[in-house]
Amino acid sequence: MIEHVEPDVDGGRFAAKRVAGDPVQVEADVFTDGHDEVRARVRHRRDGQSRWREVEMDALGNDRFATSFRVDEPGHYQFTVCGWADEARTWRRDLGKRLDAGQDIASDLEAGAQLADAASKRARGTDAEGLRAWGQRLRAVETLDDVHALDGLIELLDCYPDRSGATEYDHTVPLVVDRERAGHSAWYELFPRSASADPERPGTLADVVERLPYVAELGFDVLYLPPIHPIGVTNRKGRNNVRAGGPDDVGSPWAIGNEAGGHTAIDPALGTFDDFHALVERAQQVGIEVALDLAFQCSPDHPWVKEHPEWFRHRPDGTIAYAENPPKKYEDIYPLDFENENWPALWEALLDVVLFWIGHGVRIFRVDNPHTKPFAFWEWLIATVKEEHHDVLFLAEAFTRPKVMHRLAKLGFTQSYTYFTWRNAKWEIEEYFSELTTPPGSDYFQPNVWPNTPDILHEYLQHGGRAAFMARLVLGAMLSSNYGVYGPAFELQEHEPREPGSEEYLHSEKYEVRHWDLDRADSLRHFVARINEIRRAHPALHRNRNLRFHATDNDALVCWSKRTDTGDDVVLSVVSLDPHNQREGFIDLDLAALGVGWDEPFVVHDLLTDAKYTWHGARNFVALDPSSVPAHVFSVHRADADLDAEADLDAESRAVDAGALVDAAGAHSGDPA
Amino acid sequence: MIEHVEPDVDGGRFAAKRVAGDPVQVEADVFTDGHDEVRARVRHRRDGQSRWREVEMDALGNDRFATSFRVDEPGHYQFTVCGWADEARTWRRDLGKRLDAGQDIASDLEAGAQLADAASKRARGTDAEGLRAWGQRLRAVETLDDVHALDGLIELLDCYPDRSGATEYDHTVPLVVDRERAGHSAWYELFPRSASADPERPGTLADVVERLPYVAELGFDVLYLPPIHPIGVTNRKGRNNVRAGGPDDVGSPWAIGNEAGGHTAIDPALGTFDDFHALVERAQQVGIEVALDLAFQCSPDHPWVKEHPEWFRHRPDGTIAYAENPPKKYEDIYPLDFENENWPALWEALLDVVLFWIGHGVRIFRVDNPHTKPFAFWEWLIATVKEEHHDVLFLAEAFTRPKVMHRLAKLGFTQSYTYFTWRNAKWEIEEYFSELTTPPGSDYFQPNVWPNTPDILHEYLQHGGRAAFMARLVLGAMLSSNYGVYGPAFELQEHEPREPGSEEYLHSEKYEVRHWDLDRADSLRHFVARINEIRRAHPALHRNRNLRFHATDNDALVCWSKRTDTGDDVVLSVVSLDPHNQREGFIDLDLAALGVGWDEPFVVHDLLTDAKYTWHGARNFVALDPSSVPAHVFSVHRADADLDAEADLDAESRAVDAGALVDAAGAHSGDPA
Repeated sequence: MIEHVEPDVDGGRFAAKRVAGDPVQVEADVFTDGHDEVRARVRHRRDGQSRWREVEMDALGNDRFATSFRVDEPGHYQFTVCGWADEARTWRRDLGKRLDAGQDIASDLEAGAQLADAASKRARGTDAEGLRAWGQRLRAVETLDDVHALDGLIELLDCYPDRSGATEYDHTVPLVVDRERAGHSAWYELFPRSASADPERPGTLADVVERLPYVAELGFDVLYLPPIHPIGVTNRKGRNNVRAGGPDDVGSPWAIGNEAGGHTAIDPALGTFDDFHALVERAQQVGIEVALDLAFQCSPDHPWVKEHPEWFRHRPDGTIAYAENPPKKYEDIYPLDFENENWPALWEALLDVVLFWIGHGVRIFRVDNPHTKPFAFWEWLIATVKEEHHDVLFLAEAFTRPKVMHRLAKLGFTQSYTYFTWRNAKWEIEEYFSELTTPPGSDYFQPNVWPNTPDILHEYLQHGGRAAFMARLVLGAMLSSNYGVYGPAFELQEHEPREPGSEEYLHSEKYEVRHWDLDRADSLRHFVARINEIRRAHPALHRNRNLRFHATDNDALVCWSKRTDTGDDVVLSVVSLDPHNQREGFIDLDLAALGVGWDEPFVVHDLLTDAKYTWHGARNFVALDPSSVPAHVFSVHRADADLDAEADLDAESRAVDAGALVDAAGAHSGDPA
Repeated sequence: MIEHVEPDVDGGRFAAKRVAGDPVQVEADVFTDGHDEVRARVRHRRDGQSRWREVEMDALGNDRFATSFRVDEPGHYQFTVCGWADEARTWRRDLGKRLDAGQDIASDLEAGAQLADAASKRARGTDAEGLRAWGQRLRAVETLDDVHALDGLIELLDCYPDRSGATEYDHTVPLVVDRERAGHSAWYELFPRSASADPERPGTLADVVERLPYVAELGFDVLYLPPIHPIGVTNRKGRNNVRAGGPDDVGSPWAIGNEAGGHTAIDPALGTFDDFHALVERAQQVGIEVALDLAFQCSPDHPWVKEHPEWFRHRPDGTIAYAENPPKKYEDIYPLDFENENWPALWEALLDVVLFWIGHGVRIFRVDNPHTKPFAFWEWLIATVKEEHHDVLFLAEAFTRPKVMHRLAKLGFTQSYTYFTWRNAKWEIEEYFSELTTPPGSDYFQPNVWPNTPDILHEYLQHGGRAAFMARLVLGAMLSSNYGVYGPAFELQEHEPREPGSEEYLHSEKYEVRHWDLDRADSLRHFVARINEIRRAHPALHRNRNLRFHATDNDALVCWSKRTDTGDDVVLSVVSLDPHNQREGFIDLDLAALGVGWDEPFVVHDLLTDAKYTWHGARNFVALDPSSVPAHVFSVHRADADLDAEADLDAESRAVDAGALVDAAGAHSGDPA
């Protein structure tokens, strides 16, 4: 019987997700009736291959077995579990017990000889000879002094088991393996039209090229651009999302399409395809990938409206319906009707949009509101794209009900936006990230967390000042291996809402061109750069399944750690959620999660302030002052460890946001218990 | 999308179990992409019927839906869940929002008229006319004052939804419905050969008939007899399980078969088939069912050994192998080889054994060591038997690894022995019974708990004296709706082990004839009778899914309650696990689980001592003295409730074990907090 295989998303209906090079850990209940010894193996292969590879599973006790295998290339894989009652091991076990009890084993020796004979027929070469020799030897002896005399035989029998009665799990488990950036990425969103260094004119793609060194200095590796297509004129929105825009208004980039073209065109105001190619290439040179937005909707001026009116929803009076979420109206947007009579042509056209931009060097797409389009469409589109292009990643921007978000992740989205922006209390953060980082959800839902987006300015950032931005950055960046910020609004701590109680930005870039002073003295750019540098240098931060929270006695202090499987790298973070007052308290560390013994001193090295403390035992005191840095990010070492390696990691750029970091509140060693 | 349907055992591979007349509660996640309103229904039918019955599900929030249906007859059923995006309800919702926002609804009115027209084609008679009239009305008006003006239309549209886009859960969930005794039973095990009232001769089936009034007085409803077949002579075990029995030894009833017959014969020393029929009939008259033991193994003298030597395992030297669990040997037993070349004949013969005893009036079987026989055999046997005989119940005596026990329950066993006998600490009891009474396990695994069996005399009973027996009885009987005792060893508090450290009884009835003095003054018979009487009178005790533990501040005090769905009946039990010292402490009641308001006084009526206390609030004091009764079993009522009904339930036989019960430690009202 083979049951409760993990991972296994909805009984094989959906693929589990892993990152290339990661071990795929598989567990299963494998058992049989009676008292026979059981063996189990994982069988795995790449889709399309006919031969399985096999890995023996280890018994964990209570009929649970586990093992892992590695997949080094992105692509589609599958695995299953097989098991069998192993006659040879059962025989060896029972014979051992009889020997211990001083019972007669003549019958056992003959049975063993028969096992050896049978196995010799399955074996080849010297192994076959060896087994035949064992058969003869067992028939020649009358008893044994020690069952370990049979270890050599058992080793041979283990290689040639009788698997005629083997069973296999009732289905194969599909596995999607993505490239590294699927599991570890830092995103920066900016509006190209606000990227001009010249306050007298709007930005262009060429200005974005000029902005690349800045983004690279901040340490991000994905540069995400809102739609860069021509913007509709009809019912164009005005500043601050007023309904009727004027002639000076630039409109929302999500109102896609005008006479200059639609989803495969570039807004002439932003530049040309040459400019775009230059951006993609120059970005690549500084280690940054350009991600585009897939917003599958049209302005009333989109070429498709005339060419394919049947692709849109029509009102009873025959006019095309604009987008609505009653009572909200989006008059500048026509939603597509994915179930129109001519739907295959529409679906193909949308697939062509994706392939078009892939052709222009894009490998990451942020998908706008995927939950308002059919699940079946996304499942088809993503599978079709990835058949040819294993390296393409899709981020689902679905801020909707949990089950819908999970379904989108299951059906193929690589990463998913989360509720992180609205999780600001300690209990919420602990509960939500525990859920996000444990199976079954973590097998298919990869969170990408954002302290802010152009649509969401949480009130915590509106009122918390600089410390609130720092705290949310450390939370996002250190809790989740994938995170992003919307800048330069983030590092410049833009925090005015359109009106009290709103989560929309005042003077939102969605509706107007902004000019940002990146060199403002109060910018968090150096702090952001340091955080991203730490993320890059510490492999413990590149995955999420290793997240562990640690108890604190202060509800404003959140403490967690991440540790690599090998234990080589351990990062311990503490954040104060109170942006107004100094908070102090004791943290009760789960020392085992840090790989530290209860009686071992260990060193915590604050990667933000460079301070080092020697701690001893689980209970330690911390104090965090919002006027300096409301967080510790410690690298944890055994006290006797060679720190050279770590020193190398951290050597560069310590000149972090001087004023704030130098005065950082210290962490005090102490274990009063 | 329809996901996470409950109950659903291993994706439809196995049936969920319910008892006839119980509501089958079904839950499911039902959702769709976009913002449409969703409706869902459970579809259910009896196996073999072609028409589904449908029950509308209620939205619980977060895309979860629930409803329940009843199945009144034992048998095999199936259900599934269907759901659809409901255009009419979406239309009504959006129109309401537009009205609230003062927006134009002309388009909505036309859309509604079209919905009414379309529905009128699916409807008949006056409903069709009504819908057509609504269509005309909507086309005649220009706006609406209030969306509730449409409630009549929505009611009609709800009856004739457009389900052309409906989806169904990807499989049907099988459901096995058993008769009442599957869910609620009290078992009494006795050895017929020890049932003689005359100490000079062994007991017979006729003596068991004489014993029936005693068993009925004790309040049990299943009388389970160890095997009643002829017992083998070869290698017969002696008293206290010594290897070589003498000519006076009676042998183990589980060493089945001699020249007088095998599994379809009755040991001539016990009587004839006429005696057996008389027993079944007389038992029925006093509300007791006779359960037999199915022990599918043979003594070396069983007729099958000669008739079908191929049905047994052979050693390399050709002799038949006796049973072993190395280094233990059972020389008086030959196991059957269920995978021998002639296995279909063996399986059919074993099925015939079951059908034979069904033919002689037996409807309950206790199955000996099912885990040492193939899973596939049991699945086939139980399904085949129940096809014709829905009323047959099987109890699995598998004291083995948890996953094997669960598999046996899944594949068809009605009830299962448990680890209860070895769960004696408070935390173990709470953890184990929480697991036993919650899904997914509780959907298929129905516990039958035993404080003792002929094989298991736990050291708690060896050393705990009378209070230990009483505590274990209350625990078993009040925690689990199915329980049993091995008597008269239980009520006579037999507690001597074969040797120190052993869980076997000294002078075990498995190997010798015993004579019991049922009238001993220290017998717990009246206490047992009272406990069974309470169980019978209180429907809250007839199921397990309603079990709730309540916190206590003393590790020796376990407190739990059971409450009917309607709230009519609530039983609250407290047991002291310390058989040597008085224990007292506070219990912190989960008042909601009792159906009591935080500010409501309520009456707890001790059904063991007849004492009544008025409590108020969650925190209450109890003291339990092992020298009287180490337990409270309270009936809980609102202080103003009419107690007549309850008084009736309890009116009979209060003359319970006078000495012990009258002096019962009191429960003191009080809420110092």
